[in-house]
Amino acid sequence: MSTQHWIGVDLGGTKILAGIFDDDFRLLARAKQLTDAESGAEAVFRQIQAAVQDLFRQTNVDPSSVRGMGLGIPGQVDPRIGKVRYAPNLDWKDLELSKVIPPDWKWPVVFENDVRMGTYGEFRHGAASGTRNALGIFVGTGVGGGIIVNGELYSGFNFNAGEIGHIVLHWRRGSTLESIAGRRYQMKRAKKLLDDAPKRVRREWKGIDLKQVKSSQLAEMYQDDDPVAVTLVDDAAKALGAAVGSMVNFLNPEVIVIGGGVATALGDSFLERIWEIAQRYILPGASDGVRCVPAALKDDSGIYGAAAYAKAQGNGKK
Amino acid sequence: MSTQHWIGVDLGGTKILAGIFDDDFRLLARAKQLTDAESGAEAVFRQIQAAVQDLFRQTNVDPSSVRGMGLGIPGQVDPRIGKVRYAPNLDWKDLELSKVIPPDWKWPVVFENDVRMGTYGEFRHGAASGTRNALGIFVGTGVGGGIIVNGELYSGFNFNAGEIGHIVLHWRRGSTLESIAGRRYQMKRAKKLLDDAPKRVRREWKGIDLKQVKSSQLAEMYQDDDPVAVTLVDDAAKALGAAVGSMVNFLNPEVIVIGGGVATALGDSFLERIWEIAQRYILPGASDGVRCVPAALKDDSGIYGAAAYAKAQGNGKK
Repeated sequence: MSTQHWIGVDLGGTKILAGIFDDDFRLLARAKQLTDAESGAEAVFRQIQAAVQDLFRQTNVDPSSVRGMGLGIPGQVDPRIGKVRYAPNLDWKDLELSKVIPPDWKWPVVFENDVRMGTYGEFRHGAASGTRNALGIFVGTGVGGGIIVNGELYSGFNFNAGEIGHIVLHWRRGSTLESIAGRRYQMKRAKKLLDDAPKRVRREWKGIDLKQVKSSQLAEMYQDDDPVAVTLVDDAAKALGAAVGSMVNFLNPEVIVIGGGVATALGDSFLERIWEIAQRYILPGASDGVRCVPAALKDDSGIYGAAAYAKAQGNGKK
Repeated sequence: MSTQHWIGVDLGGTKILAGIFDDDFRLLARAKQLTDAESGAEAVFRQIQAAVQDLFRQTNVDPSSVRGMGLGIPGQVDPRIGKVRYAPNLDWKDLELSKVIPPDWKWPVVFENDVRMGTYGEFRHGAASGTRNALGIFVGTGVGGGIIVNGELYSGFNFNAGEIGHIVLHWRRGSTLESIAGRRYQMKRAKKLLDDAPKRVRREWKGIDLKQVKSSQLAEMYQDDDPVAVTLVDDAAKALGAAVGSMVNFLNPEVIVIGGGVATALGDSFLERIWEIAQRYILPGASDGVRCVPAALKDDSGIYGAAAYAKAQGNGKK
C-alpha cells in the first residue's frame, strides 16, 4: 500500500465531490455530499469533513499518510492571504479559510478557484497531459476557464486569470461569452424565445422549470430539433467558436480542453462545430498542431486537479 | 567605456530603426533607414547593415564588444527554426534568416515578432518595468500585442501569442479588434462615412489620401470635432475598452501598456477613456491594483526590447 496519499475536494454550489489518490495518482475512492450553502461556511466544512471521513472509511487509508489536500472553490480566491473574496453560489464574502478548517486536518491544505483546479486536473491527468500550454473552458450554469503556461497553472496578478466567460463578444452591447453560452443566461433567453414560439414548441417546454433545466435535457431537445434548443445551442457554439478562435490567436495554447455539463451532454459534434467556427478567425499557421478536445476526466477533473495541485505545491511547483 | 554592447533592431514595413546600448542599457546611439521592401530580403538586410555601421560610426564602439543583437520582425516568426513564416508588409514568406544575415555579424542574433519585442522593451526598460505580468497593446496601422508572464516574454505554442488585434469583438459579424481600431480599417470605414457626410465635412477631408493618413492627422481632426474622426476614434476607444476589460478578466495582468502611433497621438485622455470603458466589463476585484498606462519608450520600445531580449537570451532567460 502506498505510504503517501493526496485528497482533492471539488466544492460546488450544489454538491461536494471528494477523492483520495495514492502517490501514483490512482483514484482510490470518491465521496459525495450535497452542499448545504444556506447553513453557512462552517456547516459546509463539516460536510467536506464528512466526505473526507467517507474516503478513509472506504479505503482504510491512515489519515497520517495524507500529504496534502487541494480544495477547489467556486469563486474568487486569494491564496496569498488564505481568503475567499467572493463565492456567490455559497454566499461567502471575505471568508478567512483558516477559521473554518477542521482542527483534525493535520495535512497542508491549498485553495484555488474550482475551474482552475479542473483545468489543472485535465492538464496533469486528463486531456491536456503531456502539454506545457493549455486552455480549459468549462461550460455549465456559467462559463469558466483556466490557463496553463509553461507547465504551470497561471493565476494572474489578482488570482483571477482564466475567466474566459467574461471576455466581451459584442463590443457595442457588451455581451460576454457567458451571457451567450452559459446555461443560466440561456434559460433567460429561452423564456423570451418561448413567448414568440408556436404552440407546438411551447407545449414541449411546458412543465420544464427553466431554472432547473439539466444539460442532458437541453441536449436531448437539441437532438430532437426543438427550435428554441437549436437556437440556444447554435448560438453557444458560435460564441464559443469566436472565443476559441480569439484565444488561439491571442494565447496560442497547444491544446484547448472543453468540459462542463453542456459540452459533455452535447458530445463530440458540438466540439467539432466550435472548432470549425474558430477556424474562421484563426490566423494562418496559428493553429498548426493545436488541438481542441473534450475534457477526459468528466466530473472528476476538479478532484484530480485539486489533489495534483496540492502535490505540486508541496513540491514547490505550481 | 563599457566593454559589452547590445544592438536592437526594429524592422518595419516603412523604416528600420537600430540602437546600440551599453551594458547598463544606456542608449548610446540610434540610426534610421527607410525600408526598401521591394528589392527583397537581402537588400533589406543590407539596409540593416548600413544602420548598424552608422551606430558604430556614431559611437566608436568596437564591433568585437557586441555581445548580441535582437531583431524585431513585423510578422510571424518561428525562432526554433530561424524562419520568418510570413511578413506581409515585407512580402516575405518562409524566409530562412541564416541565409540573409551578413557574414561580418560575429555576434549572436535573436529574432522575434516586432510587437512582442516592443512589449518586452516596455517590460524591461519602460512603462511595465518592475512588474512580472504585463500586456502590451500597440495601436497603429494594425493592432498588435505581447504578453509577459512570470517575468518572461510568452510566445505561445506556435510563436503567435499576443495577437490581440485578432480577438473577436462581434461574435455574429466576426469583427476583430484590429478591424475596428486599426488605422488601415479605420480609413476604409472613413471612405464609407464620408459618402454620407455633409459637404462641410467632405471638404475637410478633401485632399487627404486615406491610405497615407498619419496618426497625428487623425488625432488633430478628432480634437477639432470632425464628425468622421470622432466616430472612428470613439469606436476605437470602445473596442479597445472591451478588449482591455476582457483581458483584465481573462489574463489578469498587473499592467496594460498601450502604445503605437494612434494611441500616442491621442494622448492620455484616449487612454483614460479606454480604461473607463474597460471598467464596465471587469469583474469585481479583478482590476485591484492593475494599471493601464501609456508606453514610455515611444518609438524606441522596439529597439530597447530587441536588445534586452538578446541580452536575456544570452543569459538563458526570456
